[in-house]
Amino acid sequence: MGLRYSAPYTVPYYDCDVNGNMTFPSLLSVVIKWSGDQSALLNRDNAFVAQFGLTWVITNYEIDITKMPRVEQTVMITTEAMSYNKFFCYRNFWIHDEVGNQLMEIRATFVLMDRVNRKMGHVIEEIIAPYQSEKIKKILRAPLIEAINEEEKVSYRVRFSDIDSNQHVNNAKYYDWILDVLGFDFLTTYVATYVNMRFIKEVEYGAVVESVFERSQKDGEILTKHRIDVDGVPHAEANILWRPMVKESREKREI
Amino acid sequence: MGLRYSAPYTVPYYDCDVNGNMTFPSLLSVVIKWSGDQSALLNRDNAFVAQFGLTWVITNYEIDITKMPRVEQTVMITTEAMSYNKFFCYRNFWIHDEVGNQLMEIRATFVLMDRVNRKMGHVIEEIIAPYQSEKIKKILRAPLIEAINEEEKVSYRVRFSDIDSNQHVNNAKYYDWILDVLGFDFLTTYVATYVNMRFIKEVEYGAVVESVFERSQKDGEILTKHRIDVDGVPHAEANILWRPMVKESREKREI
Repeated sequence: MGLRYSAPYTVPYYDCDVNGNMTFPSLLSVVIKWSGDQSALLNRDNAFVAQFGLTWVITNYEIDITKMPRVEQTVMITTEAMSYNKFFCYRNFWIHDEVGNQLMEIRATFVLMDRVNRKMGHVIEEIIAPYQSEKIKKILRAPLIEAINEEEKVSYRVRFSDIDSNQHVNNAKYYDWILDVLGFDFLTTYVATYVNMRFIKEVEYGAVVESVFERSQKDGEILTKHRIDVDGVPHAEANILWRPMVKESREKREI
Repeated sequence: MGLRYSAPYTVPYYDCDVNGNMTFPSLLSVVIKWSGDQSALLNRDNAFVAQFGLTWVITNYEIDITKMPRVEQTVMITTEAMSYNKFFCYRNFWIHDEVGNQLMEIRATFVLMDRVNRKMGHVIEEIIAPYQSEKIKKILRAPLIEAINEEEKVSYRVRFSDIDSNQHVNNAKYYDWILDVLGFDFLTTYVATYVNMRFIKEVEYGAVVESVFERSQKDGEILTKHRIDVDGVPHAEANILWRPMVKESREKREI
C-alpha cells in the first residue's frame, strides 16, 4: 500500500561473521539506513521528526530467513511503510539476491517516542502522510515469544561502541549479546531461519546486561529462547529458529 | 611510488559514535576494504595470496588526524602501497573531505603470515609486483610507544562478533577495548589527533583481554597509553594524543 524504496547493497567483509554470512547487527543497521534514506527523500528525516519532540524507536522485529546475504554479494534491499494505527507503524523490508530470489523478509514495528521523557506518543499524520501507508484500526501482533524455562546466562557490560547518537544501545546491537551466548560451535553449525524479537525497555550506557537463554526444540526444529535483563528487569526477549548450515566456499577479501 | 586507488565513501550512521564522528573500528575496517578492492583490481585478492599459504596481517597503524569523518559526510579514500623490504610492506591511506582537505593519513605496516603456523613469511615478489611499490632496504619504524606507569584496567571477553572469517579478532576491533576504558565523559569531550598502535600477537576467540591504560600528558597535550593483555602477555600497545572536541551540529538520520 505504501511507497516502496529499493536500492542495491554490496555486503563488505566487515559486515560478515566467520561463516561469511552477514551478521544480524549489520543487517538491521543497514536496512534501517534504507528506511532513513526513504524518509530523507520524502522530507521526513530525523530532524523533521525531532521538531515534534519525537524520535522513531523500534519495538519488534519478525524476520523470515531463506538465506543470509553473503560476503561480497550484491543484494537488493526494499522497504515499504505498510500500515499504521494510533500508536504503531508497520514497516517491511525485503532482501533479494541478484536474480530476484527473496533472501529474507523483515517485519518491523515502529513507535514515535518523546525525545526527553522516552514515552510513546501518538502517530502524527504530518509525519507519516508522505509514506502513503494504510491507516488501520487493528493492532498487529507478532506471535507470542515463548518464555525461558531453564535459564543459562552471561553478563555483558555495555560498551561505548554499543551506543548510538541518541545515547541508547542501538537495537541492532542486542543481537551481539543474544547470539554470543550460543557459542562458536553452535554459530558455525546452525543458521537462523526465523527471528521474533521484542524490545521492551531501552538499555543505557553503563548498564550490565544479562543475556539469558535456553536451547530447546519446537516441531523438530531447534529453537533458542532469549531475554535481555538489566538489574533483573526484562529489556528485550526473542525466539530464534535454526537449521543446520550448508557450508559454502568462501571468497575472503579482508585485504 | 606505487599505484594509487581512490573511491568515495559516504559515512552511514552506524559507522559513527555518539558524537557523530566515524569510529576507529569502522574507519579501519573501511580503509582495509579499499586496499582489498585495489588488490582485487590487480588480481591479487586473498584467494591469490592464499595459494602461497599466506595471509596479510597488519602489525602497525600510525594515524595523523586533522578531523574525523562525520556522519553522512562523503569522503574520498585513497590508498597506495608505498614501499616494502624483505619482511614488511608499507601502505598509506588518506581520507579527504568534499573539497580536498586532508582529514587523516594512516600509515600501515603489513606482513605476510603463514595461514597455518601464523609465522611471518618473506615478502613474495609475485604477490606484490603489481602494486608497483618501491623496494627498500630499510626497516621503517613508527615512533616508540611509551609504556604505562600507573596501570588501570578493564576486562573484556572476546565476543563471537569480534572475530572475523579467519577466526581471529580483527585489528579494527581492538579499538573498542582501548577506547571504552576511557569512559563516556572523556570520549565526548576529547577527540584523537594521533594514534600509534602496534599489534604484537593475535587475539583468539574465547580469550579474556585486559585493556590496560593510563591517562597522562605530553608537551601540554593529553596522552593516553594503552596495552591489550591476554593472560598477562601483551598482545597490542598504543599511544593516543587528544584535543578538546569542537562540538558540531548533528544531522541525525538513524531512520
